[in-house]
Amino acid sequence: MHGTGLSGGALPVAGGLVISLARLNRILDVDIANQRVTVEPGVTNLDITKAVAPYGFYYAPDPSSQQVCSIGGNVAENSGGAHCLKYGFTVHHVLGVEAVLPGGELVHLGGSLVDTPGPDLLGLVVGSEGTLAVVTKVTVRILRRPEAVQTLLAAFDSIDAGGASVSDIISAGIIPAAVEMMDSLAIRAAEAAVHPNFPDADTVLIVELDGPTAEVRALFDRVEGICKAHGATTIEVAQTDEQRARIWRGRKAAFAAMGRVSPNYYVQDGVVPRTRLPEVLNRIRALEARSGLRIGNVFHAGDGNLHPLICYDERVAGQADAAVDVAAEILSYCIEAGGSLTGEHGIGADKSQYMPKMFTEADLALMQRVRAVFDPGGICNPGKVFPTPRLCGEVPGPYRQHPAEAAGLADRM
Amino acid sequence: MHGTGLSGGALPVAGGLVISLARLNRILDVDIANQRVTVEPGVTNLDITKAVAPYGFYYAPDPSSQQVCSIGGNVAENSGGAHCLKYGFTVHHVLGVEAVLPGGELVHLGGSLVDTPGPDLLGLVVGSEGTLAVVTKVTVRILRRPEAVQTLLAAFDSIDAGGASVSDIISAGIIPAAVEMMDSLAIRAAEAAVHPNFPDADTVLIVELDGPTAEVRALFDRVEGICKAHGATTIEVAQTDEQRARIWRGRKAAFAAMGRVSPNYYVQDGVVPRTRLPEVLNRIRALEARSGLRIGNVFHAGDGNLHPLICYDERVAGQADAAVDVAAEILSYCIEAGGSLTGEHGIGADKSQYMPKMFTEADLALMQRVRAVFDPGGICNPGKVFPTPRLCGEVPGPYRQHPAEAAGLADRM
Repeated sequence: MHGTGLSGGALPVAGGLVISLARLNRILDVDIANQRVTVEPGVTNLDITKAVAPYGFYYAPDPSSQQVCSIGGNVAENSGGAHCLKYGFTVHHVLGVEAVLPGGELVHLGGSLVDTPGPDLLGLVVGSEGTLAVVTKVTVRILRRPEAVQTLLAAFDSIDAGGASVSDIISAGIIPAAVEMMDSLAIRAAEAAVHPNFPDADTVLIVELDGPTAEVRALFDRVEGICKAHGATTIEVAQTDEQRARIWRGRKAAFAAMGRVSPNYYVQDGVVPRTRLPEVLNRIRALEARSGLRIGNVFHAGDGNLHPLICYDERVAGQADAAVDVAAEILSYCIEAGGSLTGEHGIGADKSQYMPKMFTEADLALMQRVRAVFDPGGICNPGKVFPTPRLCGEVPGPYRQHPAEAAGLADRM
Repeated sequence: MHGTGLSGGALPVAGGLVISLARLNRILDVDIANQRVTVEPGVTNLDITKAVAPYGFYYAPDPSSQQVCSIGGNVAENSGGAHCLKYGFTVHHVLGVEAVLPGGELVHLGGSLVDTPGPDLLGLVVGSEGTLAVVTKVTVRILRRPEAVQTLLAAFDSIDAGGASVSDIISAGIIPAAVEMMDSLAIRAAEAAVHPNFPDADTVLIVELDGPTAEVRALFDRVEGICKAHGATTIEVAQTDEQRARIWRGRKAAFAAMGRVSPNYYVQDGVVPRTRLPEVLNRIRALEARSGLRIGNVFHAGDGNLHPLICYDERVAGQADAAVDVAAEILSYCIEAGGSLTGEHGIGADKSQYMPKMFTEADLALMQRVRAVFDPGGICNPGKVFPTPRLCGEVPGPYRQHPAEAAGLADRM
């Protein structure tokens, strides 16, 4: 835990003690033949890849903050990243953990193989946002670096044309390594911050394919054809590693870059079924016009994970509260479209109030009871995830993180 | 639950009531655009594929019994199949379930998207062998049928040559859809039962690649080259769908076919890290010589999931008990090699006694406590999975399924 969390997972909303695992930063075992690595939780995401890169391997989940975020934090939040469309979330790559329960017992969940017997307590801990246990060792699987990677950036006059291209790519049975979209506000912000030389367009789509060279070459032509058929105004194909890195620098900087075009901003994180994307994005655009707050959109289009960035100025009375309301309304659009409260940033303190919109009382009661098995005293990250903390006697009332705090954390990414 | 379970999951070892869900067999929703299907638990595995095949999709996990086994049973056992090396187990394909807890509460675990908020109770229920809840609806994701599928069968003079081929294929970064191995006894049994026209060899390796045509063509040549380099005596490439189906008929019939070469047999299910396969297989061969019981080996070589078939004759005094001892010894080899008690058939009653070999007391106590949240009275499939039933007051003593019962169940597959 380096305190880098975009989603504020390490923020002690109910006060108390924060356990930093930053100095548990050793790589304990690298087993190339069986494609797995065991590390302490303070090792950064990118350092796992660095340790296995000489052998031609890498660790697949790649949150935009991968240079600084720790694998322990990734486990807590079940982090995704631009490439989770094809490769899955952290939970799909963690084989086992060693963890200490709040009562002091040391337990081993999962193992070093794909499947282990007994109830899957590992899946329970991955994504539990620190509410169940303190993870002290993590075994992850590593993947062989693909033979070829090809990336293109296509510009469109409308979000509908970009969205239709995504639908057609997926419908053609192509599973890109990544499909990212950014709208004009996000493009301008990225341009101002890191100069990726993006076109000045309404929408840009970034598509990356990876795999065996022959496959990538054949499918890449089809992706290019689909983008052209939907009226792409420009298509830029990265010819070198440097060009590819530049495109990703633009995309991965987008959150922090928002600070260049707005004094403050609030990052929302929701999910909609892929087929409902255009409808929800148009509702967000209408909300932007109605609220008077600019909303930048950066999202993982392939799996419908939206990241609207709501711009506001805390010096203007009422704007911070208005941003909170806008963010809440966007979440309700996601749920109404059959989506979810969070794609990868977790529930935390801010969203626990919305859990009853997605789950019934019986669903939530079961979650609470399972949590109580690990943490009967409610001492693990109290005030997070669960919507009814009063029942646990954890915190005296409802908590809501102020957007300025979230923005402050995001700036450090 | 049709009572087809190879692993005897539906067997009420402690007596009591068996709830059959066989008539909950409706397909409730087919959502092709979002690639998901919702069914009742009694729908068979293959019927899901049949429902979506007209649209070019299929349901990936394919246990050998897929014509008769139900999706509810697959969820209970976290079933795999020949193609789980590339595509994963049932848990990787179930998006959500509706379930009834033993206390009567109806809960919804997971959802219809890849990731949902809160503790992952879904992963807990998948593979819980009926010990947590009764699943009444299942939403699974479906995959687009690959453009091309190519299958080869290679024969080798030794298990080491076959195993070395598997290692080289995986090390080359190729992820086949399936990599299966069978030894001479299993080959002869399959030949006697379904006449797949397999070569009379020490070992056969079946490798299947799927994906875009260009990729499959390029990689298939490399797989063929690797098999030749390790001295394959014959290589047969399926040229038609009929030839491909014949190869799989031979492989998938292997368990039941064992009845043609032995009056009784006992199916073991264990996992070893891929790199330890040759060592463990040689130990099994030595055990075969020492015990005087023939052992056929059929296994998912790509992920190290062994299925030794221990032949015995229950009419010969002591042989049934000897088979049990041999099966137990093979499991100890798996665990000593850093493997696992079960790959896909579950723990059930038979293996619960071995759980303490893999897990510490704290690990098992935590599992028990989580189970108690769902099923405080211990009424859900009592006597299964957990090694210390006495602590739960569920059953009066240790249970062990007689191998003849297991064989009887297997014969019905």
